Amino acid sequence: MKLSYNKIAGKNTQRIEAISDGIFAVAMTLLVLEIKVPAAEGKLTEGELAHVLLAQMPRFLVYFLSFMTAGIFWVGQSAQFAYIEKSDRNLNWLSLLFLLFVSLLPFSTAFLSDYTNYRFAIFVYWFNILMLGVSLYINWSYAVRHRFVETESDLEAISGAIKRRIIVAQLLYFAGALLCFINTYLSIGFIILVQLNYAFGIFAGRRKQ
Amino acid sequence: MKLSYNKIAGKNTQRIEAISDGIFAVAMTLLVLEIKVPAAEGKLTEGELAHVLLAQMPRFLVYFLSFMTAGIFWVGQSAQFAYIEKSDRNLNWLSLLFLLFVSLLPFSTAFLSDYTNYRFAIFVYWFNILMLGVSLYINWSYAVRHRFVETESDLEAISGAIKRRIIVAQLLYFAGALLCFINTYLSIGFIILVQLNYAFGIFAGRRKQ
Amino acid sequence: MKLSYNKIAGKNTQRIEAISDGIFAVAMTLLVLEIKVPAAEGKLTEGELAHVLLAQMPRFLVYFLSFMTAGIFWVGQSAQFAYIEKSDRNLNWLSLLFLLFVSLLPFSTAFLSDYTNYRFAIFVYWFNILMLGVSLYINWSYAVRHRFVETESDLEAISGAIKRRIIVAQLLYFAGALLCFINTYLSIGFIILVQLNYAFGIFAGRRKQ
Amino acid sequence: MKLSYNKIAGKNTQRIEAISDGIFAVAMTLLVLEIKVPAAEGKLTEGELAHVLLAQMPRFLVYFLSFMTAGIFWVGQSAQFAYIEKSDRNLNWLSLLFLLFVSLLPFSTAFLSDYTNYRFAIFVYWFNILMLGVSLYINWSYAVRHRFVETESDLEAISGAIKRRIIVAQLLYFAGALLCFINTYLSIGFIILVQLNYAFGIFAGRRKQ
Repeated sequence: MKLSYNKIAGKNTQRIEAISDGIFAVAMTLLVLEIKVPAAEGKLTEGELAHVLLAQMPRFLVYFLSFMTAGIFWVGQSAQFAYIEKSDRNLNWLSLLFLLFVSLLPFSTAFLSDYTNYRFAIFVYWFNILMLGVSLYINWSYAVRHRFVETESDLEAISGAIKRRIIVAQLLYFAGALLCFINTYLSIGFIILVQLNYAFGIFAGRRKQ
Repeated sequence: MKLSYNKIAGKNTQRIEAISDGIFAVAMTLLVLEIKVPAAEGKLTEGELAHVLLAQMPRFLVYFLSFMTAGIFWVGQSAQFAYIEKSDRNLNWLSLLFLLFVSLLPFSTAFLSDYTNYRFAIFVYWFNILMLGVSLYINWSYAVRHRFVETESDLEAISGAIKRRIIVAQLLYFAGALLCFINTYLSIGFIILVQLNYAFGIFAGRRKQ
Repeated sequence: MKLSYNKIAGKNTQRIEAISDGIFAVAMTLLVLEIKVPAAEGKLTEGELAHVLLAQMPRFLVYFLSFMTAGIFWVGQSAQFAYIEKSDRNLNWLSLLFLLFVSLLPFSTAFLSDYTNYRFAIFVYWFNILMLGVSLYINWSYAVRHRFVETESDLEAISGAIKRRIIVAQLLYFAGALLCFINTYLSIGFIILVQLNYAFGIFAGRRKQ
Repeated sequence: MKLSYNKIAGKNTQRIEAISDGIFAVAMTLLVLEIKVPAAEGKLTEGELAHVLLAQMPRFLVYFLSFMTAGIFWVGQSAQFAYIEKSDRNLNWLSLLFLLFVSLLPFSTAFLSDYTNYRFAIFVYWFNILMLGVSLYINWSYAVRHRFVETESDLEAISGAIKRRIIVAQLLYFAGALLCFINTYLSIGFIILVQLNYAFGIFAGRRKQ
């Protein structure tokens, strides 16, 4: 009997998690390369050097935004794989699709850093976030549908919570992206606030934990 | 009795897998550095900025190609090490040989990105893929021959499937590379199609899984 | 019953530790990119090449400083997670906050490398170290308060030792930073000495281990 | 009783191994960035492009040399930690010292790539290899002396083999470095041969395994 290669490849979630942590780690650290050290022209005073650095503030803001974005999706993917016990070739590839958009994040970040005043740069950045959400949603749906997920408590409830979370967050990011028609910094600020809320639950829900 | 160093070194497949995931993660994330953020000349309109980004499309295409290439071989190597239980110094080095060609991928990608219209750039890229296939094939053959592989079911069948897979894929990549004599984008498109087929089984064999 | 997403996310310290090791590894290796290979102008003699390299000594010094800084905090975080057995969403995010400042280290290092004679560059570098200490302190306090820590011996004693260590070290770094009002190299040298002491216990306490 | 921080920190070899694999992975992949894609001046023919790439051959050679160097020391360190079961703060720092020289490898490589004809560049490169060997030797000696090593068979024999290996290899590297007084490419070629011998045992000892 000839064995199908598809039956062999990709049963191990450990390797998916390992390469995910690797790609997230590299992407999150590469982001800082976008904050360029300002080149000195002639001899600066201490005060001038401080001003030169402060002029980089938009880049620090975008850096912070992207670190938050990466963090949000790292926590999200970790939460999924805490339940996903098995894998197959397709799930491996759905994870790689998700990681494709993680690895694009340094580019979207660099693009937004260079063109912070452009709505088109916000659009590109938002599109990256959207694709992260879509691929993470597909990843989970596939794992649930193929019974790769094991939970102690009610799978339906957990699965609903994970899906709802992605959809609500994406709606908020979409709203944030639309704010760019007023002002691009308003967009960035709003998205950061949404992310801070998800990260530390500033505005609501801390008691319910 | 003097102990040979060769008996000591490299019994652990865990470290091979860890460094592999690391090198794949770095290589896959470095690929995106080839998509340069277009430098603004003077003040652009939103539409001009969009056009400037669209002019980078060949680079996005090559980026996608290389992410797929890396993904294909990551899945392939993971599949092998799901069965390989032991290791020795030689297998460590065969893995490092494979990883040498993984780490060269950002170079071949950059070269192809800069010279997308050149058959020679396709040849260099294809040669990198060929070497990945050859070293992965040798890796598996060595592991089987030295009984480092443990399988629940028929080793012959699994081993045959893994080897067949590599050979058939390499023949298709070779055919794709030859298409560059018509047009280099045809080559790239064909190789991406082959890879998408292997990744998601678009054209055939989904039912047989 | 609707399940809160917060109850699901982030119970796994293994992924935190994995992404931490990844970010530290990338950050520590990126540091070396700040030591630029001096560009040759015309044909150099062997002696001239040696002098050109020696002129990079301040960059090697800053590189060494930053590798030590990263090492200190990597050992510190490892020591905490040797005791932290569980995690929740908040601890994940406190770890990411800490990693944000790890990933900023290549920037602070590059800034200090380019402006070694400026007090402001010392201030920026010191501020990075301060934030590393503060976030690591919060990380530990949170874990202890939420009973995520498991120890064989006296938790109070261990917790006290960890907190004291961070506070004393930060006071010494602060003293080192103040030395920049005399000379910036004095600052760098003093901080390196403090770090060497913590790393290898040169000056005191070796017998007490 | 006040607990010494030194008793707490660094009991875990797992984290040392993880950050080692990370730093090796990043360093080995960064090496390829030294092979610059030649910039096109005007429209090249296929043949001209091939020649432009061939002109990069010295860089490929140095890249290969450095990948081998990193591989040799990765295998060597893996072999040590296959036996080292426990750790303390000092061993953590000795490992970080070793990793400092791993992370310097991309610099030494870039320096040698740019100045392949200079004896001083060979000296810098050799010094990096020497420091890798010295720190790895100290690492092992410390672990043995503090009884962190567990072996099924004779510790003395294993320890002797590991130490002998490092010393003999370093003598050969030293001999190779001396060859630069005849010709620097002779040095590079000789060192690669020594490494190939250690990696694949081309010249001797295969039967004795």
